[in-house]
Amino acid sequence: MAEINENFLKLKSSYLFSTIAKKVNEYVESNPNCNIIKLGIGDVTKPLVPAVVEAMKKACDEMGTSEGFHGYGPEQGYSFLREKIVEFDYKKRGIEIDASEIFVSDGAKSDCGNIVDIFSEKNKVAICDPVYPVYVDTNVMSGRSGAGLEDGRFENFLYLPCTKENNFSPLPPKEKVDLVYLCYPNNPTGEVASREILEKWIKYALEMGAIILYDGAYEAFVQDEKIPRSIYEIDGAKKCAIEFRSYSKTAGFTGTRCGYTVVPKDIVIDGTTLNSLWNRRQTTKFNGVSYIVQKGAEAVYSEEGQKEILANIKDYQENAKIIKDSLEKLGYECFGGIHSPYVWLKTPKNMSSWEFFDYLLTKVQIVGTPGSGFGIMGEGYFRLTAFNTKEKTIEAMARMASLKI
Amino acid sequence: MAEINENFLKLKSSYLFSTIAKKVNEYVESNPNCNIIKLGIGDVTKPLVPAVVEAMKKACDEMGTSEGFHGYGPEQGYSFLREKIVEFDYKKRGIEIDASEIFVSDGAKSDCGNIVDIFSEKNKVAICDPVYPVYVDTNVMSGRSGAGLEDGRFENFLYLPCTKENNFSPLPPKEKVDLVYLCYPNNPTGEVASREILEKWIKYALEMGAIILYDGAYEAFVQDEKIPRSIYEIDGAKKCAIEFRSYSKTAGFTGTRCGYTVVPKDIVIDGTTLNSLWNRRQTTKFNGVSYIVQKGAEAVYSEEGQKEILANIKDYQENAKIIKDSLEKLGYECFGGIHSPYVWLKTPKNMSSWEFFDYLLTKVQIVGTPGSGFGIMGEGYFRLTAFNTKEKTIEAMARMASLKI
Repeated sequence: MAEINENFLKLKSSYLFSTIAKKVNEYVESNPNCNIIKLGIGDVTKPLVPAVVEAMKKACDEMGTSEGFHGYGPEQGYSFLREKIVEFDYKKRGIEIDASEIFVSDGAKSDCGNIVDIFSEKNKVAICDPVYPVYVDTNVMSGRSGAGLEDGRFENFLYLPCTKENNFSPLPPKEKVDLVYLCYPNNPTGEVASREILEKWIKYALEMGAIILYDGAYEAFVQDEKIPRSIYEIDGAKKCAIEFRSYSKTAGFTGTRCGYTVVPKDIVIDGTTLNSLWNRRQTTKFNGVSYIVQKGAEAVYSEEGQKEILANIKDYQENAKIIKDSLEKLGYECFGGIHSPYVWLKTPKNMSSWEFFDYLLTKVQIVGTPGSGFGIMGEGYFRLTAFNTKEKTIEAMARMASLKI
Repeated sequence: MAEINENFLKLKSSYLFSTIAKKVNEYVESNPNCNIIKLGIGDVTKPLVPAVVEAMKKACDEMGTSEGFHGYGPEQGYSFLREKIVEFDYKKRGIEIDASEIFVSDGAKSDCGNIVDIFSEKNKVAICDPVYPVYVDTNVMSGRSGAGLEDGRFENFLYLPCTKENNFSPLPPKEKVDLVYLCYPNNPTGEVASREILEKWIKYALEMGAIILYDGAYEAFVQDEKIPRSIYEIDGAKKCAIEFRSYSKTAGFTGTRCGYTVVPKDIVIDGTTLNSLWNRRQTTKFNGVSYIVQKGAEAVYSEEGQKEILANIKDYQENAKIIKDSLEKLGYECFGGIHSPYVWLKTPKNMSSWEFFDYLLTKVQIVGTPGSGFGIMGEGYFRLTAFNTKEKTIEAMARMASLKI
């Protein structure tokens, strides 16, 4: 008889954002005239920029002609896009990455999830806490955890607490681990890691033979040139780090779907390059990203495209500043929100994260994300995002000011 | 130290179509003026139909406005598309499938590959021979095979020979297996399974507690109403079969990327529905298909869209008939090519599949696919596809006629 992958049963049945959506829907059903402001899920709201829209429409037209039609493309992505990535995202920042080290995909979530395929299930995994749940869940599914614990953690993972005390940037542990997930600018805390911290991690990885899985989905929000935007700005990273990038937050592609993963050829384990393994994985289980979408992603790098997306990012950065400044003025303790679209705040009056979620939803109809949804160290924290419109962000802050807490 | 997934090392390093591409490129480099006709890889050549192009351009425009912008969509696909699928692909054929049983994806290759995530690695797998290599390779990667054997097979799989003697439709085996991959119309043989054969498989699966993974990517080519186009036309299939469908061959989406998978809620293993597991897998490791592409797929079901795609399929069917009739006239033994874009032919003079590949490439510059690339029972066979233009197909057949074999 067929058996299921029992590791799935270790997971809680619902994903954080599904739970939030359910709670919001229930509230809206009971209060049909309410006016909800969503500062919860990390989804952008600004339309695609004109350069991207025009490029995709042109690609649609091409696809409608015999001469311009594109069937199966390279699973790794078209050269026209991979070369732009090399040029703009790396070479311009002094980093040498070869186009053959870039794998274009339908988004960082897919790659962060699927990357586990190429590693042994015996590998010991280190995960920050709080953390983007995908790293945890995909490693549970693929058998790298032990049982689920009462507190929501799993046996066998090494959790790296990200707290106020360590500026939300944990140092490498004393013990040996094999796979380390890092995400900077961080989701959910909105904080960044300094060059010095990242250097320590690369040193650790090279000494231990560990692999760093570096999620750089939010790099476009970094405002300070001293803060690394790519892990490959750190010497030695090309020997031990895989980097995930996305157009979701950079260019508003959350519903358009495109990202990429960098697997340098210098990462070799027992004579096998991870690049060849990921290539085998992708050519076997993936068939490339839509030609139309890749043409849209290419347009992000055009002169117009760059100007347009940077204007959008600046607007989101302003929203983050509005949130952070307003809340601090109200006495909230806030983190992140400078090099990131996320503001991470301490809940008032020792409310739990979910208590504060319910409080904001019912009192002022603001939806945020409970910090405890990202891990036990997120308990007592709350995440707000800068991705709504400026008007709604300002209104949300006015509503916050009306609260007597 | 991090360890790799050693199962990857059991695989041959190159995928069939990469090897073919390499051989063709080498030939073209030595013979720059040659005029190659590709009847190899199963890639379509006709442009997207106008209804699809228009719908996608409209969606691009929407995405460029605040009101029409779509960020993250449901991981399972938009209702507008899932409901069309239910209506057109199932209800119209008398099959009751609920929209919540449909999971829209970036293509059948991804789903066929990723489906292994939800099953135990202890499951015994039955695979046809010859077969689409993805079923084999993904099960090797996920640890369901033993070692690779000299002849290219793997220990622990049960291979089901598809030969002339069984009309390329194997019957269920005597022994117990847990997962069975079936693909009809078949890739690579182009043959179909009768209702009676499929009934035997469903009976077997229900008795043994096996799951049928049914690849219906080519169903649009079926010309005879008596031949099932969906496994769910067979009673009991909703209790034991997952079906993969694709717009690639149906609507020329090979480079646009969209397909879907049906996981009925009636499939329950030890109290867990496979629908809930696949939903958990997709919500954790996937973020939905581009809104633009889903609008394109929706347009396939419009009145214009249906008319236009059916005209294209008819043209491909005519090409298949041209290939089959021409080759039979020349004395080749041919299979498939009626309810399928693939013609499966016996190589002449007992040539091996790769000998015949080289022979056609060098003598008449025709590229096909060696049958042995699909499994050892494909040795001595060769696959030609109907996806080139009518002109090139006719020219290819004229070139075949010029051969003295």
